[in-house]
Amino acid sequence: MDSGRKFKVVKGDSLERVRTGAPENLPERFAHRALGMQASEIRSLFAVASRPEIVSLAGGMPNLSALPMQMMASVTEKLISENGAEALQYGNGQGHPRLREQICDVMALEGIRAHPDDVVVTTGSQQALDLISRIFIDPGDVVLVEAPSYVGALGTFKQYEASVVHINMDQDGLIPQALANAIKSIKASGRKIKFLYLIPNYQNPAGVLLPADRRTEILDIARREGIFIVEDNPYGLLGFEKPSPNAMRASDSENVIYLGTFSKTIAPGLRVGWALVPQSLKDKMVIASESSILCPSNFTQLVISNYLANQPWRDQITSFAKLYKERRDAALSALDKYFPKNATWTKPAGGFYIWITLPPEIDTNALMPKAIAAKVAYVPGTAFYADGFGSWSLRISYCYPTVERITEGIKSLAGVIKSEMEARQIN
Amino acid sequence: MDSGRKFKVVKGDSLERVRTGAPENLPERFAHRALGMQASEIRSLFAVASRPEIVSLAGGMPNLSALPMQMMASVTEKLISENGAEALQYGNGQGHPRLREQICDVMALEGIRAHPDDVVVTTGSQQALDLISRIFIDPGDVVLVEAPSYVGALGTFKQYEASVVHINMDQDGLIPQALANAIKSIKASGRKIKFLYLIPNYQNPAGVLLPADRRTEILDIARREGIFIVEDNPYGLLGFEKPSPNAMRASDSENVIYLGTFSKTIAPGLRVGWALVPQSLKDKMVIASESSILCPSNFTQLVISNYLANQPWRDQITSFAKLYKERRDAALSALDKYFPKNATWTKPAGGFYIWITLPPEIDTNALMPKAIAAKVAYVPGTAFYADGFGSWSLRISYCYPTVERITEGIKSLAGVIKSEMEARQIN
Repeated sequence: MDSGRKFKVVKGDSLERVRTGAPENLPERFAHRALGMQASEIRSLFAVASRPEIVSLAGGMPNLSALPMQMMASVTEKLISENGAEALQYGNGQGHPRLREQICDVMALEGIRAHPDDVVVTTGSQQALDLISRIFIDPGDVVLVEAPSYVGALGTFKQYEASVVHINMDQDGLIPQALANAIKSIKASGRKIKFLYLIPNYQNPAGVLLPADRRTEILDIARREGIFIVEDNPYGLLGFEKPSPNAMRASDSENVIYLGTFSKTIAPGLRVGWALVPQSLKDKMVIASESSILCPSNFTQLVISNYLANQPWRDQITSFAKLYKERRDAALSALDKYFPKNATWTKPAGGFYIWITLPPEIDTNALMPKAIAAKVAYVPGTAFYADGFGSWSLRISYCYPTVERITEGIKSLAGVIKSEMEARQIN
Repeated sequence: MDSGRKFKVVKGDSLERVRTGAPENLPERFAHRALGMQASEIRSLFAVASRPEIVSLAGGMPNLSALPMQMMASVTEKLISENGAEALQYGNGQGHPRLREQICDVMALEGIRAHPDDVVVTTGSQQALDLISRIFIDPGDVVLVEAPSYVGALGTFKQYEASVVHINMDQDGLIPQALANAIKSIKASGRKIKFLYLIPNYQNPAGVLLPADRRTEILDIARREGIFIVEDNPYGLLGFEKPSPNAMRASDSENVIYLGTFSKTIAPGLRVGWALVPQSLKDKMVIASESSILCPSNFTQLVISNYLANQPWRDQITSFAKLYKERRDAALSALDKYFPKNATWTKPAGGFYIWITLPPEIDTNALMPKAIAAKVAYVPGTAFYADGFGSWSLRISYCYPTVERITEGIKSLAGVIKSEMEARQIN
């Protein structure tokens, strides 16, 4: 029946791929939504940018140097020794009940009163974005986002064939009047708006904070217009000078879908995030998640649960915030010192990012290869727009490199920008 | 700006949910695909079935009693102590390169020659099903599956609004001629067939094995008709008497999308599976996965990678197979001893499941509450059909309970079925 079983171990580099001929008419065989799934040029650039000699101000990788590794190692060792049969088994599709209770405690720090039954644990908050898109977006539906907005959210909305509309921001985040105007004109054109996606705290990529009064105004507009708010809050506990205002979800439990994550307060490699959803959406979220991944990992959920139960996690978040504040300070000093006077940038009070605006003649996509040649990487502004805007902006993140490397990287980048300005005779 | 921050810790049971009024016109606000996302009656039954006094022959939970927990604990402890900065960080969207190489070694056991560049690591193979559906299925597209087929796959295909068509099986799995006939008639009706989904080894739920000659015939038909094959292989290494035939992917690298998982050979709580895809699909799979979860967990991937590198994992799989064989033997003995003579069942040569067919007057959905009252649970046959068929069939799984409990559960179930037959005067 099977005399030819091969136990030979094959290694990637030495293996010639066996080809049996590519299928015919492949493009016609994909779903419509898959036609836009194309590898982009920027992806290849980032592969280059991850080389160690390059100062990467591009990625948003948390800095784990403040995480007590020996303690994490002992938490996991103990978990498997004492509770391996549960930790390594399939779990609840909605997430582990004990962790869902603890998540409510974490959210209470930002004024949220939540019930564990309304929490759905996800594989990072990216999965929550995917599930929400799946539940709400028919092709052509409008999703409102900040201008600029998080690249990962834009990618997901695009995959569900949403029509993404950016709403203007200023130094204080989304402008309520701009939101009201956009809704009016979109509705007048007969299109359906499904939700407003925003990051109120230390926004990615703009680094700005939405003040409490604007939160109230935006909540009122959304509720009046029958539009859900998706409040994405990865950085809320990472404020540098004072706590961030209460979460928007704190004052509206029925019209706000709240997304949280342990990626920035503990560690992203565990891939544990969550959605706190209105009761009316809970069943659909769980069913969508089961269809997508069956259940989140009991193992990584219980690592986090045991960490929260036994370690001083609030102090740990304070250590992270201190580490990021030092880096933010270094980045702002270097920008002041080296950057040309006709560039402007945001001054984040928390989180990971600074948004830089250059004179409109500068194309930050075209500038990337030159920056990489000068051993520094950033993310061009167009990545944060669904509509091609943003070509004279860029995002830098100060979260990961050392203070010295941040200073060095910003100095190099300033040099590249100044050369470009001289070449184009911009003063 | 924020004088009212609440640090009060709230606990689930004592918390009254704050209600601000449910949104209006909610059903109109969902995507079309979300209308079918409804909690089913069977879900509530399974919640009851998980009570400890019930012998559950329902779930497909692997039996982790054969897993050396102390060793797993030490693998994870060492991983974080020595390589925590990588293990707990964001990772590669396609999966960790080292694990992708090792996955090729695992697949070589079933005759597959693969390149690590064509492997996409997923959050369990359920996520691979989701990604494939996303890439291929437009609403109304036809997906071919075995009759019966895996309930989790059917759920995902439904979520992407596929039209699922079941193809007849017998004791040797999918019948090639039935496949050819179905394709002909579907094509004649003008509908598009996207892929054939099947589980060749110890099928879930039927427990049958597809022999090598049928594999070849099915591969030929699919290639000729321009239909991808999705080969789902969770149980291939868990054969009891002899190795399973080579994977279908071993003889066709361009028209077969192969799904694997460590859930049954190591542990499901790690949520690590993979897809081995034709080169022509790789970019789309990675982009779809990034949009869905950003990246799989570096932590759980590296636990598996270190386990594979340093532990006798082939011997461990042999131990698992031995454990399941004992339980299969106990289940078949109990069926022979206690079940009525007008019931028939499959005799699995590997894997977790037995498919039982009763006289057509018996409704296995209606029987479930009576079974639970008799302290035994199973899965009614209709769960494994997209079209309501299967009402006089059921699936039992022998993987998880002890030999004694399996015998006791099957005896109780036989009693319930015999009573039902007497009440209906079936001989």
